[in-house]
Amino acid sequence: MSVEETLERLRHLPYEDIGFAEVDHHRALRRGFPEVVLGEGKSSDQVVSIAERLAAQSDRLLITRVGADTYRAVKERLPDCRYHAEARAITLDRSRGSLRPGVVVMCAGTSDLPVAEEAAVTAELMGSQVDRVYDVGVAGIHRLLDKLETMRSAKALVVVAGMEGALPSVVAGLVAAPVVAVPTSVGYGASFGGLAPLLAMLNSCAGGVAVVNIDNGFGAGYLAAVINRQSQEGLRE
Amino acid sequence: MSVEETLERLRHLPYEDIGFAEVDHHRALRRGFPEVVLGEGKSSDQVVSIAERLAAQSDRLLITRVGADTYRAVKERLPDCRYHAEARAITLDRSRGSLRPGVVVMCAGTSDLPVAEEAAVTAELMGSQVDRVYDVGVAGIHRLLDKLETMRSAKALVVVAGMEGALPSVVAGLVAAPVVAVPTSVGYGASFGGLAPLLAMLNSCAGGVAVVNIDNGFGAGYLAAVINRQSQEGLRE
Amino acid sequence: MSVEETLERLRHLPYEDIGFAEVDHHRALRRGFPEVVLGEGKSSDQVVSIAERLAAQSDRLLITRVGADTYRAVKERLPDCRYHAEARAITLDRSRGSLRPGVVVMCAGTSDLPVAEEAAVTAELMGSQVDRVYDVGVAGIHRLLDKLETMRSAKALVVVAGMEGALPSVVAGLVAAPVVAVPTSVGYGASFGGLAPLLAMLNSCAGGVAVVNIDNGFGAGYLAAVINRQSQEGLRE
Amino acid sequence: MSVEETLERLRHLPYEDIGFAEVDHHRALRRGFPEVVLGEGKSSDQVVSIAERLAAQSDRLLITRVGADTYRAVKERLPDCRYHAEARAITLDRSRGSLRPGVVVMCAGTSDLPVAEEAAVTAELMGSQVDRVYDVGVAGIHRLLDKLETMRSAKALVVVAGMEGALPSVVAGLVAAPVVAVPTSVGYGASFGGLAPLLAMLNSCAGGVAVVNIDNGFGAGYLAAVINRQSQEGLRE
Amino acid sequence: MSVEETLERLRHLPYEDIGFAEVDHHRALRRGFPEVVLGEGKSSDQVVSIAERLAAQSDRLLITRVGADTYRAVKERLPDCRYHAEARAITLDRSRGSLRPGVVVMCAGTSDLPVAEEAAVTAELMGSQVDRVYDVGVAGIHRLLDKLETMRSAKALVVVAGMEGALPSVVAGLVAAPVVAVPTSVGYGASFGGLAPLLAMLNSCAGGVAVVNIDNGFGAGYLAAVINRQSQEGLRE
Amino acid sequence: MSVEETLERLRHLPYEDIGFAEVDHHRALRRGFPEVVLGEGKSSDQVVSIAERLAAQSDRLLITRVGADTYRAVKERLPDCRYHAEARAITLDRSRGSLRPGVVVMCAGTSDLPVAEEAAVTAELMGSQVDRVYDVGVAGIHRLLDKLETMRSAKALVVVAGMEGALPSVVAGLVAAPVVAVPTSVGYGASFGGLAPLLAMLNSCAGGVAVVNIDNGFGAGYLAAVINRQSQEGLRE
Amino acid sequence: MSVEETLERLRHLPYEDIGFAEVDHHRALRRGFPEVVLGEGKSSDQVVSIAERLAAQSDRLLITRVGADTYRAVKERLPDCRYHAEARAITLDRSRGSLRPGVVVMCAGTSDLPVAEEAAVTAELMGSQVDRVYDVGVAGIHRLLDKLETMRSAKALVVVAGMEGALPSVVAGLVAAPVVAVPTSVGYGASFGGLAPLLAMLNSCAGGVAVVNIDNGFGAGYLAAVINRQSQEGLRE
Amino acid sequence: MSVEETLERLRHLPYEDIGFAEVDHHRALRRGFPEVVLGEGKSSDQVVSIAERLAAQSDRLLITRVGADTYRAVKERLPDCRYHAEARAITLDRSRGSLRPGVVVMCAGTSDLPVAEEAAVTAELMGSQVDRVYDVGVAGIHRLLDKLETMRSAKALVVVAGMEGALPSVVAGLVAAPVVAVPTSVGYGASFGGLAPLLAMLNSCAGGVAVVNIDNGFGAGYLAAVINRQSQEGLRE
Repeated sequence: MSVEETLERLRHLPYEDIGFAEVDHHRALRRGFPEVVLGEGKSSDQVVSIAERLAAQSDRLLITRVGADTYRAVKERLPDCRYHAEARAITLDRSRGSLRPGVVVMCAGTSDLPVAEEAAVTAELMGSQVDRVYDVGVAGIHRLLDKLETMRSAKALVVVAGMEGALPSVVAGLVAAPVVAVPTSVGYGASFGGLAPLLAMLNSCAGGVAVVNIDNGFGAGYLAAVINRQSQEGLRE
Repeated sequence: MSVEETLERLRHLPYEDIGFAEVDHHRALRRGFPEVVLGEGKSSDQVVSIAERLAAQSDRLLITRVGADTYRAVKERLPDCRYHAEARAITLDRSRGSLRPGVVVMCAGTSDLPVAEEAAVTAELMGSQVDRVYDVGVAGIHRLLDKLETMRSAKALVVVAGMEGALPSVVAGLVAAPVVAVPTSVGYGASFGGLAPLLAMLNSCAGGVAVVNIDNGFGAGYLAAVINRQSQEGLRE
Repeated sequence: MSVEETLERLRHLPYEDIGFAEVDHHRALRRGFPEVVLGEGKSSDQVVSIAERLAAQSDRLLITRVGADTYRAVKERLPDCRYHAEARAITLDRSRGSLRPGVVVMCAGTSDLPVAEEAAVTAELMGSQVDRVYDVGVAGIHRLLDKLETMRSAKALVVVAGMEGALPSVVAGLVAAPVVAVPTSVGYGASFGGLAPLLAMLNSCAGGVAVVNIDNGFGAGYLAAVINRQSQEGLRE
Repeated sequence: MSVEETLERLRHLPYEDIGFAEVDHHRALRRGFPEVVLGEGKSSDQVVSIAERLAAQSDRLLITRVGADTYRAVKERLPDCRYHAEARAITLDRSRGSLRPGVVVMCAGTSDLPVAEEAAVTAELMGSQVDRVYDVGVAGIHRLLDKLETMRSAKALVVVAGMEGALPSVVAGLVAAPVVAVPTSVGYGASFGGLAPLLAMLNSCAGGVAVVNIDNGFGAGYLAAVINRQSQEGLRE
Repeated sequence: MSVEETLERLRHLPYEDIGFAEVDHHRALRRGFPEVVLGEGKSSDQVVSIAERLAAQSDRLLITRVGADTYRAVKERLPDCRYHAEARAITLDRSRGSLRPGVVVMCAGTSDLPVAEEAAVTAELMGSQVDRVYDVGVAGIHRLLDKLETMRSAKALVVVAGMEGALPSVVAGLVAAPVVAVPTSVGYGASFGGLAPLLAMLNSCAGGVAVVNIDNGFGAGYLAAVINRQSQEGLRE
Repeated sequence: MSVEETLERLRHLPYEDIGFAEVDHHRALRRGFPEVVLGEGKSSDQVVSIAERLAAQSDRLLITRVGADTYRAVKERLPDCRYHAEARAITLDRSRGSLRPGVVVMCAGTSDLPVAEEAAVTAELMGSQVDRVYDVGVAGIHRLLDKLETMRSAKALVVVAGMEGALPSVVAGLVAAPVVAVPTSVGYGASFGGLAPLLAMLNSCAGGVAVVNIDNGFGAGYLAAVINRQSQEGLRE
Repeated sequence: MSVEETLERLRHLPYEDIGFAEVDHHRALRRGFPEVVLGEGKSSDQVVSIAERLAAQSDRLLITRVGADTYRAVKERLPDCRYHAEARAITLDRSRGSLRPGVVVMCAGTSDLPVAEEAAVTAELMGSQVDRVYDVGVAGIHRLLDKLETMRSAKALVVVAGMEGALPSVVAGLVAAPVVAVPTSVGYGASFGGLAPLLAMLNSCAGGVAVVNIDNGFGAGYLAAVINRQSQEGLRE
Repeated sequence: MSVEETLERLRHLPYEDIGFAEVDHHRALRRGFPEVVLGEGKSSDQVVSIAERLAAQSDRLLITRVGADTYRAVKERLPDCRYHAEARAITLDRSRGSLRPGVVVMCAGTSDLPVAEEAAVTAELMGSQVDRVYDVGVAGIHRLLDKLETMRSAKALVVVAGMEGALPSVVAGLVAAPVVAVPTSVGYGASFGGLAPLLAMLNSCAGGVAVVNIDNGFGAGYLAAVINRQSQEGLRE
């Protein structure tokens, strides 16, 4: 497909101008996945308005970083949506597809749970079955080793950690699949809002680790699901 | 395989103590790839000594960040090794395996070439065929669009950029495969040794991007090859 | 005009001491524009008091970073002032001048809108007609290319972006006019309050880009209007 | 002109692949100015090779951050090129156009001279006549005031300063034209490689100031020349 | 006086343990000034309790960074104390000493007033008469020059500025007396909580400038008063 | 002992003024250990001069961060001193005391060896027997577990690591004795000269970890030896 | 004990899954101390739930960073727990062991008290008797010298300081026992949330100092108690 | 004296344009002191050229940060100049004035000597007699107390320290005169080029401390001499 054809095809898909954002209905076309709405910094009304537009065109929808209030507002219009309290996310899934196994989401401490759950919910909505391995910090290495089999079964791992951010390195030394590392802003003092685990993960001595933004559970779950899908079915354009 | 069995198996593989490092011959077993030697900060003698040990046990070897002098020293002992001047890397490949297509390595400017080449050489040694798309900075967007077809054929892309580090975001908006972003220390002033593109890439607004350390071409090439291998053959333990 | 004459002329213009600020009525003389009031950190009473003084001497007035409450307080005294909710700005314009075309204000995401609108409102009050091109992030490059004609018609562009801050580089590669880049504090984690897009913009590989402070929509709109006025009428002392 | 036409036109201009960079002969077409070569980090041979290609297609050429050795190598092939020792730049100008007045380049201390000269040489090659106002630091305000007339005649000012970076604010308070501020890495200790003046300039309390990267004299001179050209002749596409 | 004598003398002055702080009644002896209480982070009850103890032993008392509520609580016990609303400080002065002229306190913008007033109130309580020169930012240099005579009459100047922090450099270029520079956290974006003016002031190109902590009006006023006292009467042990 | 007695006792010990440093012969008295000389930044002559003075009064001497040249110069005067090439340290030990077991020094990679050796040599000179456990990075956790018995026998452990700095957390989760963590400046890019492992170690989720300065092998070995001595014999004043 | 035995022993201890955390009852076995609960970021309900589980299995429990409300909720279930208001900690101690002397906790200012108390309470619960030496900042050195005897009696000292963080260096110069330094986030401006004292302590010129995270009173008290226990009884596995 | 008169008087003093700097012969008039030349970054020829001009008009001259080579070049033209090797400064003093006592220069370690000497030489050339108190780090507090009498005799103290930068706080707690604190870049690791002592000094808990740039011995000596002169003779315009 030539550039002109590509641009042409993208251009003729319908835009809808809803005042504060041009909703991009053809992102699904480009990346095999519906639009995602970052709820943070948006009013409930704005979220509802965008959600309705998207739900009219797509069978799957993800809204991240929203509280229960926004959920109730969205549910009035989209009664089949679902709230994931730990992840602070709303999902809508009318696709009824089956889940392919292969994604493992891990975290070091209980404070990292919201970010880990955001990753897990994202990957699930994208069609991956997720094994959760939580509270396996590096200071208790035997807990981690107990999960070795689960870890080794993964096609992609999301590893979430705050504090010293050491878990991805240890995990990557035990598995052959790619590790997507997520630093969290959990902690205090010299954590500097997640800078400490971010730098630690970027400096990982283990091969096969790449890093996303602090607290970016969505990005990590998205990437893990893309890798998992590819690894099992090849890339579906 | 139980944890005890795993540990047992790893333990009984032969260690060799060569004074300044315990060479780990069974990493290949764990991750399907031979040991990599970071040449930086090691003397030519040290590199030669490690390389000989590893070459005796493995059919593939990668030595990164070495100059031509070290290459000549290694070549005396391992005549079939090869030097990649742009990448500043030595490779030894006695495996004669065929390459699987699927990795694209891109960079924004000519100054990013050494890092891009380190990524490409790494991925090739790991069995991936690499398409190089170089000098396609975001300030000349038409050059980039001309390569759209190549980019879309990838199972994994390595995108290398210094300065404002914008290329991975633009690329990830055009493809469905995972993008491994590599910031470089190229630049001056407010680049702060690569901090500027590193932060930019971590904040990428495009899904499907993960980041490795500044100038870490090796890590990116390694990860891309792992993803590509999985995507085409499944994970080989 | 000699320094002495200049200082003399400036000095004999009337000062009014209103307790917390010496209002500078002759700034208009120096720069062809009325005083601007930064509302942030000032009480409604303080803003009203300053606004009245200025409105008595100037036909145009801009108050930035104020809420609707302050607007209502100002409106009681200056009934012909206007509130721009998105920009969080109050304007008063009794000059009834016509607008000269030539300024384009762009932003990458909907979260960048308040800053973009502050820039647009500022440039309009200074006599420039503003074309708004919003929600054209670099991860959807085709949207941006659709606006190429508008972008190329500009004498000055304000380009607002948070996250990776890549938009100014891409835009500057497509136009010949100056680009004033504005990083925003939108984002989280490794954005570090706007540091990420700030550094990215300072490192732009494209010529013709200069940067103002994080979230400084006013400064960018001001500069764009100055350039636009010069480009069409020459500099009016 | 449509996007497709634009892309088409750009695409059919001749590329030449010279090994380490695809030389972009049509940038002149896009921005009214020949390619610029950043000499830093390139060998003399590389610079000569690029310079020859560019000189065959363009009547003006700028090479920045090169020493006298590289100049001698370039001069063998392009005998009519010229070296600007203070600016560490090579220029080639076969256009013989006349210079339009309107650019003023200022600097605070003698250590800022190389950056100021890089700006001045750039603006001159782009067709602007440059008035130099050097060594007018804010600690000796009377020197600055003596140059008020020259400063006020400008259509665009480049203001270069290291240390506390205060000069752009003072200048912008005295003129109506745009000020392009350039922080320099001159200084020691808490200058942190130019971070101090960079932050100072971004926080300028004066309107009409925008900032480029530390030591980026080229970028500032380029932008000033673009503004000056526009202000006098309008934008030439 | 020998070390032993000094320690002995200090030791025999009465301590009073009031639970959360050992009040140090002999600091006055050491430095010619009563204890100062930093109100920030202390409850009204704590402040009242310390204030009473100190007022019983000293004729002058300063409490900084307290609101009107704390003032009212203190006033119930110490009816002759006084509140300085702009400075957010409480003073008690039963010394009835005359004030020696010689301290000038300056600030760049109205937002810097609280810090400037904290400095002025401190210096006054320490026996210096203070001339206030406010709202003289460097972008309006003529206002500053109008105050030249006042500035030159000072034995010590406190110069308070946020944003680009340029005022101390300009002032120090015009006077011969020491300049104590105080950066403020006023501002936004790349001010980074006062880092920008702090670095600017530390890099001042003018001789005779020293810097105190961000927003530390007290420290600056204290130091200016010490210098002024010395300059007029010599050091009184 | 009273303060006066203490000061008196310290004061009457002989000072010797050797021009560039007052050698403190009574530190041994205070801390049970001879003076240590930081060789970095001192000329060979200066080191020799200090070493001679110290050796005349003390039976043990440590000189850190010196090359073989300085060693040869010292050896001419102190023939019984010894050079530790890996640690870059000179020691002199005429005390002939026996070593008490209990210190373990560990490091993650071969590049961390010089720092680890500086710690080990220091602890040995202070009377501790040192078990070295090197090259046990967290990415190969089985190597580490193989050394569990040695680790658990320690009264104090020094754990040296660069890159992500994860080793101290893992070790502290496996032992009960105190862990002194030493970040190293080994690494590149986002290591920022050792900042990454420093922050990681400060944020360790494991109890019993404290941190010394980047590359400060001496400080860690010193502290470990102090703890070991106390743990076995009690504190010897 | 072999690795396999160790892992086996750890593994067979009972896990209890209480929804948000796998409570680790055998940490006491590993480190001679019960689980510690970081209250910060947990709801009262979560804290109560964890506390009950732990109290059923251990005779000592520490909950840090909780307010009086959480204490009241815990007390309903565990009536013999105790609240330490200054330290913001809950303790439960049914062990009735006697305290061994040897730990000194010091702090520089009254604002550092909460962190110092967290350290003291922790050490006491771990079996150490604690001498408190508070409000001995380095600007009043005579107060500090008055406590010399107490300081010299310690087997381990915790030294807490904000602001310039100088106290640990001064203390370490006066004692022979290990000093655990704790920087606090007390302060403002250029303290940058405790960065200033953190860096100061890491750069301490005195031997025998190691540092824990900003405000980490718990970590310091824990480490001091471990050292003290070892120093008096040897290590009890 | 009016502003116009001041500017007029300054303006009519002779400028000399020597190519790379406008030498300012009337600074002496303004501040009672000759021009100072920062040698760093200037060639020997440039230094000689400036020095000659200045020496023709002023009886005192200071050139900082120059090596012995530059000294020899200057001496050929100005045979009565003097080199201070430790301070790396050249002075010329034909004034033959007597020195007024009152300045004390202190430093913590021998590595801080060059900066301390730069301060001392500066203050001496400005007419102050300097008492040097060197190598009195806070880890050996008794050495410091031995110098109490000297310290208390000062009208102004310069206190130089690297590492943790604690000395100024301790000194300011013992004296009543102003303390000018100078952080040095001595140290390694978490010193970050002097950032650690800089922040420590800015956060000093002792009153009467102000800070100059890292390694800025000149600035501190200058300020101390100004304060000393004022304190003894009043300000001489």
